[in-house]
Amino acid sequence: VKAGATTEIRVALQERSYSIHVGSDLLAEAGELVAALGRLGSILLVTNPTVRALYGDVVVTALAAAGRAAPAVVEIPDGEQYKTVATLERIYDAALDAGVDRSSVVVALGGGVVGDVAGFAAATLLRGVRLVMVPTTLLAQVDSSVGGKTGVNRPQGKNLVGAFHQPSLVVADTKTLATLSDREYGAGLAEVVKYGVTLDEALFELLERRSGEILARDPELLAEIVARSARLKADVVERDEREGGLRRILNFGHTVGHALEQVTGYTRYLHGEAVAIGMVAAAELSQRIGTCGEDVVPRLVRLLDRLGLQASLPGDVDLDAVARAVALDKKVERGRVAFIVLDGVGRCAERTLTLAEVGAALAGMIGTEATAT
Amino acid sequence: VKAGATTEIRVALQERSYSIHVGSDLLAEAGELVAALGRLGSILLVTNPTVRALYGDVVVTALAAAGRAAPAVVEIPDGEQYKTVATLERIYDAALDAGVDRSSVVVALGGGVVGDVAGFAAATLLRGVRLVMVPTTLLAQVDSSVGGKTGVNRPQGKNLVGAFHQPSLVVADTKTLATLSDREYGAGLAEVVKYGVTLDEALFELLERRSGEILARDPELLAEIVARSARLKADVVERDEREGGLRRILNFGHTVGHALEQVTGYTRYLHGEAVAIGMVAAAELSQRIGTCGEDVVPRLVRLLDRLGLQASLPGDVDLDAVARAVALDKKVERGRVAFIVLDGVGRCAERTLTLAEVGAALAGMIGTEATAT
Repeated sequence: VKAGATTEIRVALQERSYSIHVGSDLLAEAGELVAALGRLGSILLVTNPTVRALYGDVVVTALAAAGRAAPAVVEIPDGEQYKTVATLERIYDAALDAGVDRSSVVVALGGGVVGDVAGFAAATLLRGVRLVMVPTTLLAQVDSSVGGKTGVNRPQGKNLVGAFHQPSLVVADTKTLATLSDREYGAGLAEVVKYGVTLDEALFELLERRSGEILARDPELLAEIVARSARLKADVVERDEREGGLRRILNFGHTVGHALEQVTGYTRYLHGEAVAIGMVAAAELSQRIGTCGEDVVPRLVRLLDRLGLQASLPGDVDLDAVARAVALDKKVERGRVAFIVLDGVGRCAERTLTLAEVGAALAGMIGTEATAT
Repeated sequence: VKAGATTEIRVALQERSYSIHVGSDLLAEAGELVAALGRLGSILLVTNPTVRALYGDVVVTALAAAGRAAPAVVEIPDGEQYKTVATLERIYDAALDAGVDRSSVVVALGGGVVGDVAGFAAATLLRGVRLVMVPTTLLAQVDSSVGGKTGVNRPQGKNLVGAFHQPSLVVADTKTLATLSDREYGAGLAEVVKYGVTLDEALFELLERRSGEILARDPELLAEIVARSARLKADVVERDEREGGLRRILNFGHTVGHALEQVTGYTRYLHGEAVAIGMVAAAELSQRIGTCGEDVVPRLVRLLDRLGLQASLPGDVDLDAVARAVALDKKVERGRVAFIVLDGVGRCAERTLTLAEVGAALAGMIGTEATAT
């Protein structure tokens, strides 16, 4: 990636194919990119108050130049607790009151919550209108804006209802990452580490080598990292759009991560922070069952540490509760868990393990941490 | 169709292909048919109190024999006014509380409302689980259970949010039609007439020839008519699953029909009753613009009349309001309406007409009616 250049990543999914544009100064070009999608009805921009204050004007101006009129804007509240059917209904009303038709486009400007809810709205308004993702968090740029998963939470759990609805376009501007909090930024980095450790040793090495610039949020370097991550995710999604099998490798670190989020009431850890710990647990497990050597765990822990991410289970978490949450997870069947394990840095595979094996790896982590506290 | 025989209609949509089973005594076989779908998790049966009282026991018993356990049953209130997001959420909760997983099946037992809402729930629970339609109204058997359209109403209009989600199986038992009210039964017949007049002159002739037995609801004859109608709809859906063009021919009579429903507040006419009048308007229009001869309108009116369906616009309806509703309909663009017109009995095509032409046809109908009242 040259300085200031835009990388275009093509996601090949037959008639649902689309491009991801990644660059360090792209927001003002969002209008032209949307216009290039072809026949364009009304545009509905979905965002939240925080993101709107930062980037609303430039995006609205860009979209107004592309469309026949200024976009209608609907603000949804900021926070995972608003990823609900009620918020979905707000978007429905805004879209229908603005005269949405089949040639309309829903543009999601924001992080994962905005993308997931606006994406679900786009999937279901008039049984499906086009969706453009303009992700403004690192997590959304490398993960949730790519691949077509949309949805909302239910009282029974997260993301329990939704739709697969591929976007028609993704515009990822890494300049927007400058305004993220350190914690949110770090949580996004955890997913980048995931791509490296599971699929791409060269990316992992790049993260190791340039952690200082990454922490300084160099937008050019970030454009390279985001483009590389998006390409890796797109490769997986192209081969398994609806998570029939292969796509599950993207869940590396997520089984324990989800359990940890749940046991701590979704307040202590950001998703990416929990995934970072879950990745170490999964690497520990891989080492114990012998799929990878003893060098992998320390290397992963060291990188996470350099990137400011906690890499160990804290001593005060109820380990049995985490194990029970893993057992209740939807990926468990008849006492066995489909687990993504590492064969080394940059290589992974799915294995079916017993809950006892998972529990032992967790206990091993706690033991390590217990001596440190 | 032989006496008591079941007709299987295959809907060919690649990996979304499925079978429609039509017969005059099929409910008790629903369990075997569901079991034949393969790997079967929990079953959620969605129905309403009226249908449950009539057919709930036999279907629950059949499904219990097929599944690992008795199905969870969720009752939704009866009536179009309950085709809402709130009802959808009731189904979500029932499914999630019953432990729905990706191998679960949602079974919709009832008419169009049950099918549309349960179908939308199935489309979105865990981003999509399998759906089995067991339609118990004529309208649902010949129309809404086939083709994958699901959805709910919004304050802004009907069916404005939803999903395309093909069922995995449709089980249509014509014995259930015996318990319909005359009005509901007649409303279903209107859609059968639609298939005949637009696509199949032989079906139209069958309706003309055997109207007495049809009104007596002979279950064997109904199995033949339902199977034939479902095959005609399936042929169209196979060629245009997502209503890109051809599928619009299924909207014959619906533009004016919808307008009439809307202008009369959705209380005066059942959907099929409004479509019957809309079909006559569309036939009248076809004659005026010269796509069909003068024999078609009287023949259509005579058949509708024999089947107990009103075929004319009543004198007290505000014609301007109907014309305005047509103009506001989503199918209108730049003052022109995409209209399905007849080329004769059993042949139709899409034409783009001006609103003036449509208005003139309506005025012609009113005129006829005015002299009769």
